[in-house]
Amino acid sequence: MGVTNSNVSEWLASYDKSKITIGVVASHSSLQILHGARQEGFQTLGIVVGEERKRYYSAFPGADPDEWLVLENYAQLLEKADWMRKRNVIVIPHGSLVEYLGSEKFKILEVPTFGNRGILHWESSRSRQRTWLEKGGCSLPKIIDDPHDIDGPVIVKYAGAKGGEGYFIARDYRDFRRNVNLDYEFTIQEYVLGCRYYLHFFFDPTAEDGFQVQGMGEKSGKSLGRLELLSMDRRDEANVDEFYKLGSLRDLREMSLEPSFVVTGNQPVVIRESLLPRAFQMAEGTVASSFELEENSRGMIGAFCLETIVTDDLEFRVFEISARIVAGSNPFVGGSPYSDINEPFMSTGRRISRCIKKALEKGMLETILS
Amino acid sequence: MGVTNSNVSEWLASYDKSKITIGVVASHSSLQILHGARQEGFQTLGIVVGEERKRYYSAFPGADPDEWLVLENYAQLLEKADWMRKRNVIVIPHGSLVEYLGSEKFKILEVPTFGNRGILHWESSRSRQRTWLEKGGCSLPKIIDDPHDIDGPVIVKYAGAKGGEGYFIARDYRDFRRNVNLDYEFTIQEYVLGCRYYLHFFFDPTAEDGFQVQGMGEKSGKSLGRLELLSMDRRDEANVDEFYKLGSLRDLREMSLEPSFVVTGNQPVVIRESLLPRAFQMAEGTVASSFELEENSRGMIGAFCLETIVTDDLEFRVFEISARIVAGSNPFVGGSPYSDINEPFMSTGRRISRCIKKALEKGMLETILS
Amino acid sequence: MGVTNSNVSEWLASYDKSKITIGVVASHSSLQILHGARQEGFQTLGIVVGEERKRYYSAFPGADPDEWLVLENYAQLLEKADWMRKRNVIVIPHGSLVEYLGSEKFKILEVPTFGNRGILHWESSRSRQRTWLEKGGCSLPKIIDDPHDIDGPVIVKYAGAKGGEGYFIARDYRDFRRNVNLDYEFTIQEYVLGCRYYLHFFFDPTAEDGFQVQGMGEKSGKSLGRLELLSMDRRDEANVDEFYKLGSLRDLREMSLEPSFVVTGNQPVVIRESLLPRAFQMAEGTVASSFELEENSRGMIGAFCLETIVTDDLEFRVFEISARIVAGSNPFVGGSPYSDINEPFMSTGRRISRCIKKALEKGMLETILS
Repeated sequence: MGVTNSNVSEWLASYDKSKITIGVVASHSSLQILHGARQEGFQTLGIVVGEERKRYYSAFPGADPDEWLVLENYAQLLEKADWMRKRNVIVIPHGSLVEYLGSEKFKILEVPTFGNRGILHWESSRSRQRTWLEKGGCSLPKIIDDPHDIDGPVIVKYAGAKGGEGYFIARDYRDFRRNVNLDYEFTIQEYVLGCRYYLHFFFDPTAEDGFQVQGMGEKSGKSLGRLELLSMDRRDEANVDEFYKLGSLRDLREMSLEPSFVVTGNQPVVIRESLLPRAFQMAEGTVASSFELEENSRGMIGAFCLETIVTDDLEFRVFEISARIVAGSNPFVGGSPYSDINEPFMSTGRRISRCIKKALEKGMLETILS
Repeated sequence: MGVTNSNVSEWLASYDKSKITIGVVASHSSLQILHGARQEGFQTLGIVVGEERKRYYSAFPGADPDEWLVLENYAQLLEKADWMRKRNVIVIPHGSLVEYLGSEKFKILEVPTFGNRGILHWESSRSRQRTWLEKGGCSLPKIIDDPHDIDGPVIVKYAGAKGGEGYFIARDYRDFRRNVNLDYEFTIQEYVLGCRYYLHFFFDPTAEDGFQVQGMGEKSGKSLGRLELLSMDRRDEANVDEFYKLGSLRDLREMSLEPSFVVTGNQPVVIRESLLPRAFQMAEGTVASSFELEENSRGMIGAFCLETIVTDDLEFRVFEISARIVAGSNPFVGGSPYSDINEPFMSTGRRISRCIKKALEKGMLETILS
Repeated sequence: MGVTNSNVSEWLASYDKSKITIGVVASHSSLQILHGARQEGFQTLGIVVGEERKRYYSAFPGADPDEWLVLENYAQLLEKADWMRKRNVIVIPHGSLVEYLGSEKFKILEVPTFGNRGILHWESSRSRQRTWLEKGGCSLPKIIDDPHDIDGPVIVKYAGAKGGEGYFIARDYRDFRRNVNLDYEFTIQEYVLGCRYYLHFFFDPTAEDGFQVQGMGEKSGKSLGRLELLSMDRRDEANVDEFYKLGSLRDLREMSLEPSFVVTGNQPVVIRESLLPRAFQMAEGTVASSFELEENSRGMIGAFCLETIVTDDLEFRVFEISARIVAGSNPFVGGSPYSDINEPFMSTGRRISRCIKKALEKGMLETILS
């Protein structure tokens, strides 16, 4: 059932450590991953379906891969595992890889990948995410089990909704009734008013300096590794973000227009400095609890994102976690107001390669791969 | 009828190539143009009407021109052509130069200018823009010829409207009737819901590396030059962008308030990476078709901007093209998430001077001037 | 009655000028202040209440203070003045220091602080701010003395409202009546429609180059020092900024929801270049008039922020001034599109330490401290 630690150890044993190649599917956040890999001195491999897409990467010579793996479809990636291992490839997974390949195929891809693939199980269901985040001390939007209990604005999310599709806002029970499609499974969540901040953290279990995450449960009293805040964004969502220009939600419904929440891009933001301690508390709890989710959990490794709303009481609500690099870090290829404090030109993509480089030097590669 | 290629060749013949001076009207995007020119090692000339404005540029020593040309009015610039040519000046045109001088006078300004002045003919009319962009493979918002055919939200643009003035939104025919001023010429355009992205491209016909634009028509099979994506912004528009705080469009009309669309500034954004291939396709088509617009067209040269909306189907609609540097590139004086991949600290202003410097080295200056 | 110039002179006389330490309360904009101090070669001191907060600064090694002063409460800072002076500390005040300590205690803190503490008197009352800004040539939103005169949208601000709390918007007199709480003192201000720009300026009275502020009144004809524009932001405000997603103001009031204006973070912006001359005019006037507010005024020193709205007539309205570093400069730890023109990696925090360093070199430290 999936790749095991001993699989990874075995593969790594035959890797030429002086020729590690960073491999990534050419989409999502691959420009910063490829650019960052090169900055840290690695060879790079771009993975694509079809020859056509390769061209567009030539527009970015600083990220254009040293080599391409051209597939006919993503499933074919599984058959290319051998080919990749011969080239000493470490795959950096991102949301599009997981989506294109499917989580089941991703789990059995026989190539060392950055981060802990096991965490996907906890990330992939809303209720398991809730267990994880609450264990980590995060406050989440309330869930309304019975639609009759709706007593203020709510957001209704259909099962399997991705990247903002399949949501709708209801302001009361009548609104809910009028708009809901009962053929699908759905969750009713309190609509939290406030400003959204997508916090891009990085957890490096091999680093012993900086802010050290303190373990909980069995790991209580132990330092688990270094936690960093790399950047922060807000998502652009079509068409909700320009909806108001045409009128109010009510006016627009008269015109049969409903807001949608499809992510089209990202804007850089920063948060009040006085909120950072609480942000770190939540992130620390999320990392610490990731080791307690199941027996022998390897926990969270690498980049993750807490997707939050800050209310006018200056309190966070965490509505989602992404357990790997998010596209929201794309505005920060050249650094962010947070990463600039420690080192200029440090993107999340580059931080991943830096983590791999440091682990290589310390002989701890297995600690950060799965 | 305007400056010809042989005029430019003649002028350049007497230029001291070791003393090229970059000249620009002190407005719009001149800070980055002047700063970039200095970074690339050129002398700089600032052009102003009135002594007063010079002072404000002293607040930016890194862009403060080496020399000033102080005019009484912009028309006077034509008389100063000789004076400028004696100083080996290349003028970098921007939207304010074209606006202040008027397009007719701009065409006959007897100084070498960066880019192709001939393209202004195609850029200056909505219908010619449409021909150009559609030939390039871009999707545009639909045009509604008969107001009775309005069956959803539209934006009505009066002829000659500039920088967002002289627009209004109508949600249906009644709305249109109530708000339209029939004394003016107008176009009715489908109102496309989504998020706006202003894509800042650069086309360098003298560069043979990177992403090469493939010609169409007679130039089919030929590489025309290098296309780059330098940055991306979203415009701030007063007062539409803060309109919602007071209520809905309908409420506000009861208070005799109408949204306006005057550009006041710019915010940095990035787009989903998976949309970049389509963005490059459109930009490539736009460049390639620019050579096919008329006989012996010199095509697009240098900076241009595709002004787009991305819908919740993740499709682009291009609603306008600017055929030179846009003020939307001003947030990126120190680089952007796109240009940082290739070289840090590369603004559009600096890229222009880099293009001139490289063309100088290759003896290809005439290729990029008009 | 507060710290005097001769107090400061006396303290500085015993300072070891080669061991100046920059001290700051760990909140607000302290990351950039600490980071900037280190970039300029100073020792740093972080001031906190409680041990807990120290941890979070270890997440930013580039800003983590060399030493901590841990207090039980902020009032205790006054007792630590001696301790700080022995360490050659210069305190950089920011909004949170002033808020936590209270303005009365801040005035009597017996440690040299950056900037002019006397200006707080003029900043702390809306009516004195108005006097100051109007003397400086700024246009302000109109004040409506009699609620019956409300003839368009207004913003009602209760006395002592901070960071956007205690405001409400009324669109007419009826709206005002329905929402006002007559138990509190309030001001009724014209609601200006447009886009908000928070302009971060820096005035260095010891610098003789760049843009020199011209004095007024008794100082007429004199250059007072150098004025720079360092960056620009727009504030995120919860919950007004995402309010529209639920409906119009009117719809929301039916649900007993009112917009609030609590600052949660900041976004980078730039303004039309053609508006910069007017922005500098206003800032110059504000600095020049600060010397004329009372007899022997030392005027504005260091960072200040003009909080403005730009209307669709491209005119500024200044609705507030902050007379020290604002948190809105936090997006620019690694530089801004304005500061990048002159020197890369120049934050407001670093500019403060640069100012102190230059003043030290010139023996003019007393000129910039109080």
